[in-house]
Amino acid sequence: MFFRQRFVPGLAIYSYMVGDERTKECAVIDPTRDVDEYLAIAKAEGLRITHILETHVHADYVSGSAELKARSSGTAQVHCSGLGGKEWTPPYADHVLKNGDEIVMGSVRLKALHTPGHTYEHLTWLVFDHTRSKDTPWLALTGDFLFVGDVGRPDLLGEEARKKLAHQLYESVFKILPPLPDYMEIYPGHGAGSLCGKALGSRSATTLGYERRFNPSLKPADEPTWITRLLEGMPIAPPYFRRMKQVNAAGPKIIGLELPGHRRIPAKEVRDRVCEKCLILDVRPKEAFAAAHIPGSINIPLGHNLPTWAGWVLPYDTPINLVLDNPNDLTTVVTHLIRVGLDDVQGYLDGGIEAWETAGYPLERITTLSVHDLARQLKNGTRPTVLDVRTEAEWNSGHIEGAIHIHGGQLEERFAEVPRDKPVVVVCGSGYRGSIAASFLKREGYTDVSNVIGGMAAWKAAGLPTV
Amino acid sequence: MFFRQRFVPGLAIYSYMVGDERTKECAVIDPTRDVDEYLAIAKAEGLRITHILETHVHADYVSGSAELKARSSGTAQVHCSGLGGKEWTPPYADHVLKNGDEIVMGSVRLKALHTPGHTYEHLTWLVFDHTRSKDTPWLALTGDFLFVGDVGRPDLLGEEARKKLAHQLYESVFKILPPLPDYMEIYPGHGAGSLCGKALGSRSATTLGYERRFNPSLKPADEPTWITRLLEGMPIAPPYFRRMKQVNAAGPKIIGLELPGHRRIPAKEVRDRVCEKCLILDVRPKEAFAAAHIPGSINIPLGHNLPTWAGWVLPYDTPINLVLDNPNDLTTVVTHLIRVGLDDVQGYLDGGIEAWETAGYPLERITTLSVHDLARQLKNGTRPTVLDVRTEAEWNSGHIEGAIHIHGGQLEERFAEVPRDKPVVVVCGSGYRGSIAASFLKREGYTDVSNVIGGMAAWKAAGLPTV
Amino acid sequence: MFFRQRFVPGLAIYSYMVGDERTKECAVIDPTRDVDEYLAIAKAEGLRITHILETHVHADYVSGSAELKARSSGTAQVHCSGLGGKEWTPPYADHVLKNGDEIVMGSVRLKALHTPGHTYEHLTWLVFDHTRSKDTPWLALTGDFLFVGDVGRPDLLGEEARKKLAHQLYESVFKILPPLPDYMEIYPGHGAGSLCGKALGSRSATTLGYERRFNPSLKPADEPTWITRLLEGMPIAPPYFRRMKQVNAAGPKIIGLELPGHRRIPAKEVRDRVCEKCLILDVRPKEAFAAAHIPGSINIPLGHNLPTWAGWVLPYDTPINLVLDNPNDLTTVVTHLIRVGLDDVQGYLDGGIEAWETAGYPLERITTLSVHDLARQLKNGTRPTVLDVRTEAEWNSGHIEGAIHIHGGQLEERFAEVPRDKPVVVVCGSGYRGSIAASFLKREGYTDVSNVIGGMAAWKAAGLPTV
Amino acid sequence: MFFRQRFVPGLAIYSYMVGDERTKECAVIDPTRDVDEYLAIAKAEGLRITHILETHVHADYVSGSAELKARSSGTAQVHCSGLGGKEWTPPYADHVLKNGDEIVMGSVRLKALHTPGHTYEHLTWLVFDHTRSKDTPWLALTGDFLFVGDVGRPDLLGEEARKKLAHQLYESVFKILPPLPDYMEIYPGHGAGSLCGKALGSRSATTLGYERRFNPSLKPADEPTWITRLLEGMPIAPPYFRRMKQVNAAGPKIIGLELPGHRRIPAKEVRDRVCEKCLILDVRPKEAFAAAHIPGSINIPLGHNLPTWAGWVLPYDTPINLVLDNPNDLTTVVTHLIRVGLDDVQGYLDGGIEAWETAGYPLERITTLSVHDLARQLKNGTRPTVLDVRTEAEWNSGHIEGAIHIHGGQLEERFAEVPRDKPVVVVCGSGYRGSIAASFLKREGYTDVSNVIGGMAAWKAAGLPTV
Repeated sequence: MFFRQRFVPGLAIYSYMVGDERTKECAVIDPTRDVDEYLAIAKAEGLRITHILETHVHADYVSGSAELKARSSGTAQVHCSGLGGKEWTPPYADHVLKNGDEIVMGSVRLKALHTPGHTYEHLTWLVFDHTRSKDTPWLALTGDFLFVGDVGRPDLLGEEARKKLAHQLYESVFKILPPLPDYMEIYPGHGAGSLCGKALGSRSATTLGYERRFNPSLKPADEPTWITRLLEGMPIAPPYFRRMKQVNAAGPKIIGLELPGHRRIPAKEVRDRVCEKCLILDVRPKEAFAAAHIPGSINIPLGHNLPTWAGWVLPYDTPINLVLDNPNDLTTVVTHLIRVGLDDVQGYLDGGIEAWETAGYPLERITTLSVHDLARQLKNGTRPTVLDVRTEAEWNSGHIEGAIHIHGGQLEERFAEVPRDKPVVVVCGSGYRGSIAASFLKREGYTDVSNVIGGMAAWKAAGLPTV
Repeated sequence: MFFRQRFVPGLAIYSYMVGDERTKECAVIDPTRDVDEYLAIAKAEGLRITHILETHVHADYVSGSAELKARSSGTAQVHCSGLGGKEWTPPYADHVLKNGDEIVMGSVRLKALHTPGHTYEHLTWLVFDHTRSKDTPWLALTGDFLFVGDVGRPDLLGEEARKKLAHQLYESVFKILPPLPDYMEIYPGHGAGSLCGKALGSRSATTLGYERRFNPSLKPADEPTWITRLLEGMPIAPPYFRRMKQVNAAGPKIIGLELPGHRRIPAKEVRDRVCEKCLILDVRPKEAFAAAHIPGSINIPLGHNLPTWAGWVLPYDTPINLVLDNPNDLTTVVTHLIRVGLDDVQGYLDGGIEAWETAGYPLERITTLSVHDLARQLKNGTRPTVLDVRTEAEWNSGHIEGAIHIHGGQLEERFAEVPRDKPVVVVCGSGYRGSIAASFLKREGYTDVSNVIGGMAAWKAAGLPTV
Repeated sequence: MFFRQRFVPGLAIYSYMVGDERTKECAVIDPTRDVDEYLAIAKAEGLRITHILETHVHADYVSGSAELKARSSGTAQVHCSGLGGKEWTPPYADHVLKNGDEIVMGSVRLKALHTPGHTYEHLTWLVFDHTRSKDTPWLALTGDFLFVGDVGRPDLLGEEARKKLAHQLYESVFKILPPLPDYMEIYPGHGAGSLCGKALGSRSATTLGYERRFNPSLKPADEPTWITRLLEGMPIAPPYFRRMKQVNAAGPKIIGLELPGHRRIPAKEVRDRVCEKCLILDVRPKEAFAAAHIPGSINIPLGHNLPTWAGWVLPYDTPINLVLDNPNDLTTVVTHLIRVGLDDVQGYLDGGIEAWETAGYPLERITTLSVHDLARQLKNGTRPTVLDVRTEAEWNSGHIEGAIHIHGGQLEERFAEVPRDKPVVVVCGSGYRGSIAASFLKREGYTDVSNVIGGMAAWKAAGLPTV
Repeated sequence: MFFRQRFVPGLAIYSYMVGDERTKECAVIDPTRDVDEYLAIAKAEGLRITHILETHVHADYVSGSAELKARSSGTAQVHCSGLGGKEWTPPYADHVLKNGDEIVMGSVRLKALHTPGHTYEHLTWLVFDHTRSKDTPWLALTGDFLFVGDVGRPDLLGEEARKKLAHQLYESVFKILPPLPDYMEIYPGHGAGSLCGKALGSRSATTLGYERRFNPSLKPADEPTWITRLLEGMPIAPPYFRRMKQVNAAGPKIIGLELPGHRRIPAKEVRDRVCEKCLILDVRPKEAFAAAHIPGSINIPLGHNLPTWAGWVLPYDTPINLVLDNPNDLTTVVTHLIRVGLDDVQGYLDGGIEAWETAGYPLERITTLSVHDLARQLKNGTRPTVLDVRTEAEWNSGHIEGAIHIHGGQLEERFAEVPRDKPVVVVCGSGYRGSIAASFLKREGYTDVSNVIGGMAAWKAAGLPTV
């Protein structure tokens, strides 16, 4: 049996390829939209991609199933669950599955098990290798149902759905898992860093038996207690998740061989667009952005977490113009953006920020503060608003006295809580999220915004007091 | 917990890296001698290699432990089992381990379990992640004790040792494994293709419970029956295995930053050496070799199996001169050779085979036959000796009537069985091994040697009869 | 002034990029059809390609002008000479030039000088850098008019045209060059290896003064003497040159972003096509081809000279199926083929020759002989036909007694001169061309064909006699 | 004749390789210290490097001759001029040359011509290709004697030497050049951007005749007039040039296969060194540096000009610690530094600036101003010192009223002219040099230092007034 796991950092996605080495058939499970790697692996291994499977309609990234089908010259068929009803059955599915449906490739068999809870239609794929055992699954692709050390969260479809899903999840965990063997390997749909659960472990695999014993969410409890505990301390769900759901349920558009965004846009043209309907996304490091940037631009420094934050703070109905540190970053940035459905990238500033700078156009700054600078300000009576944009858990583990707390991902909805008549000092863990938040506030009209470089990590390392 | 598996094709080796992501400590288990990849992974992940562990003294490849230690600027310490006695304790071990010894890196703990049978000193490493469970191992690095679908063979140290080891293996399987949990993941030291077992599966991981049920070698039986079954159909152990054992037990020499073999040797110099003590290893494709090669040269076409065959047919006390298809292949070829301890590579023919050809030096040929050509010869009464060099299992699955069978790896010991007074036609699966064997026979003085291109695969595909 | 020379080996083409670094305008002169490199240079230098110029309608490669225009997003305009009349004015020319026409980009000026002789419409481009001198050309792009050590040949358009062109060339050399300054640099359209002249030097530039004194073709003489000397010993013009001329005059088709030939063709499908209208082009080394190949396939080993030989021996109206040594060679092979207009590449044998071999399909061989083998055959009375396929000049410098001589490029027209009732032994310089010729003869039905490995180089190196 | 020109941007150096394609001998002329590329070209072309030649003792970069010899396995011999006396004869020279000495490689001959003026010992190498002409040089490697559009400056060895050298240069230009032919190609030792002349052209080659007519420095004049004109407007010679001269005359140390600087230095260790004898060189973009940097660090943003500025502003007797934007930049940065003899690179900040930031260590800022910000400051009466660090020529082409002018390269000697009691605003062309200067001033204790982002380019583009 051919088996391969692929990891996409940032969104912390695991996709899978399973196939039969003799018949050369191969299935891809939960592909992301940048499908080149699946095609490359198949080519290198001499396999044909014959099946594209999904565990469920994803909330955190755009499904690559239709894309992969298009790029596979149409030889592959897409198989999706129909168990969530019409609303949750992607229109690009060639085959709509029900509980117990099977995919057979040579001596490899995959069996769909309905495991609702994270979503209504969620499937777990049991994988059988008939050369070893015809009846016992060797491993399970559990998608966002069961993670290493966690289970998928049931609260992504809204308050009302949450109740129903939490109940279904309880049932899936305590009725569907029990008969399955301890010694079955578990390959989940996400790893550490994903927001599809509360506390995903960093390993990429586990076993059902190990999780049964050491995964807190699999500990038996009566339903209400279990649900309360599960939802306790659940991180905020990015609003873009709802958008992703819709995109996936409706069927994303096919990108094909050429990524968007290759046009180099002259500084003058960028300037003419700023006032209009275009958003400038500047992916340079937080320091470079702080020293000089285009007025109104949003900073999300290039890094694994770019897609999550892009989904979080960028509007989905506005064309994007990029400011890059290096034109060679374009492919990476655009690949990140299309993974979360931000396809309308019009191009990037030709000549980089220097072209803008030397054109004599206006520049904005965000003041950078060291933790010592901030401590001095707080002591000296210049009492700025300290805005802490970290997660609930981080906030609870110690924060600056007098700070206010709004999770960065909630700024769009809650920024009005930040007073406009005082300087604002944003603080996060290290300064990365602070730069995103600071650029967001400046775009919303706040004029005196600083970012604490080094963030709470530096604050604590310098021995400054927290409450 | 940081966990990474590395696969070396050909020898089908799995090495491992296990570490703690917070303390940045990292252990490498069973490294091969080409250590760049471990160093690169550690660098990319920001980890320090602090421990180098071995499961046992390898028979099929040279240990990279000393090499890795040298390249790690000496910060890493080598830990080896001392349970096989002085003879099987590598001199490069900084720490000599006994049953139950532990390695702790932050919240990661590895515990050495003595599991003799493949070798006397063999250790299995149980891996605990204290953030999940302090008492229960999450996974085991089983080395050559337990494979996916197989167990390590006990017959590599000679007839006498085999009896003792087979008994130990029986004990390890039926006394040491039983108390360990079903749901423990198993990460073995080899995958499909390795000769350290009989029938290793192609997946890279499994669980103890799955193997307990579906691994034929874990099926309970009384000891004599179990041992008989285990040894039945065991593939031939390459004689070079014994050599490897000695190299590893004695401690291989350090290679450092520069691979051997970079010297370009002029055709004239190669010619002057042929008659002497040098071996010409020609790694071009079998067809190119067949049409024109240096008299006396051995052909092992470049490919994953080069190291195994090199160990099998090349003498260990003779300097090697290479003939390459492409000078860029040098690093790959030499990396293959040093993995099995063939370090004395003096260089490669400057200008490739063309330099030899245009110098007007003598050339040899191996006649190439299609299966139709061979069928015609057999029918027409030119009755050549058909020498089948495949494995026992392949031979048993169907061969040409009247052929004789000597496994390619045994040719060195058994070639005298091939008559010298008749043309010899070598046949294997596809022609690859046939070319190795044919070149070997020519070097031994056989004059009329042909190789069947396409081998038995073609023979059967063409519908020709087998017995 | 920005100035860059690009060399395409094999066809030994020089293209040029000239531009103004301040206005960022850039012209490309005589682009080949694989235009990525021009685009990459322009991008790296921050230049816009605004002009595409040609010196003349090429005979040896397909013009890349239309391709480059298409890939430049249409911002570039193509400028071609109209001085050869409608027949020699490419339809893709946006601007048709006459003698003295100029292109101005900032302070850079290019002036077209009509220098017929190699072709009717031939232009030489004088390049002026106004920052240095407004009136004196700094350098000249002489195309196929003036080479380093040679002039362009006037005999490529047929016997009748040759007379007229030779006269024009005499006029161009002795009337147009004289007023130009000694100290003007000369950048030609071809280097050593090109068949557009007789004896091109290997340097990539020279000066008019140096050539005036040391280029034999610029030595004054009366016209008939001069022409006689020029045509003496002129190498054979490949017949495909005529075809290229037509393709270029008619306007080649646009290839765009995807090269042809990416389809992997299963062995079975290749077999089914062999008998039909498909040509199998096998680009493996001569030795590999000799040992085993698909019946009827033509061997042109991958190398710089592939495009010339492909133009020479492959039919232009037959789809091509490739047999590659390595799938990664595809881009190189196809880039070579499209440079000479062989666009109808349908794909390559999936799995390489091994797929064919193991399918049990028929295989052909070409016998390989060392020079010692051939000497023995000639001595022993087996008197094969020795066919020498080298150039006239090589043949004259010494050949095997009794051999017959047909230049490899003329085989298509003259192979009937080779007797069919005797074994044929092909000999060339080293065996490369011999393999092409031998595969050609086998395709034409000759059954007993050998190739001398090492060729005349080996013959002479071994001290064997020539006449 | 094999001929290849290699360009090193930044220092704008041209090195050359000249050889005979048949004998495979090859000479390298004026190699830089990063010798891999010469070795790679030789390997690709099948050439042996047999001779290493210099035109003169370089002032702007460290000679790579000894390095190349060491890496060529000692087969190459170094040939240097002895005409400047013992002081200017490198100790690593295997052969000391006098006027008229020759190097012969097959049919290629190089003849040394003494052309003092830039330096005492300066040689021009005439290159003859005997296959074309035995007596007439085809081209000349003119080193720093004759450039495209310029001549080498005679003022780099100090005031006293200048007089003697200027006279010698006059003699070389008007006595040695005249007999050489107009049509000889000229290949100089530097291109545009080098400070070894006043106004070098951007083309990489020219001819003697063209320069004779259009190079202002070759225009006849009486000696005093000619010298006055030549020295007029000569750019400042970096003080490090004197240091380079000494290094080259004394013989640089061999670096070998491993570049310095590979050690990752933890933030804590960097901090402990700052106060001591270590210099922190931060190569991040000017904006990133401005927002947050280690106190006392010098910013030279990574780019082609890094080596020149490093030579200019960094002390030669202080170990360097690097702060990189990306660890992958290390090789580039160190290659730049060793080219100018800054070998004592101890390593780079592990984890980049973020590691420093999150450790809670002190951070410094440079205020960034847009040109509009500066205009406002100047208008509003906050009258900062505007320090213009551009070249004389740039300053003269228009500057801000009231600004003071000190060329960036002279800051070390003249910074005391900048008042310490007022804010300092540095302005340059675009902000790059301004950042270097600003970091230098801060290191010297100036507290209120700003840098104008966009520089005078932005100032002018925004329509602000200059005088």
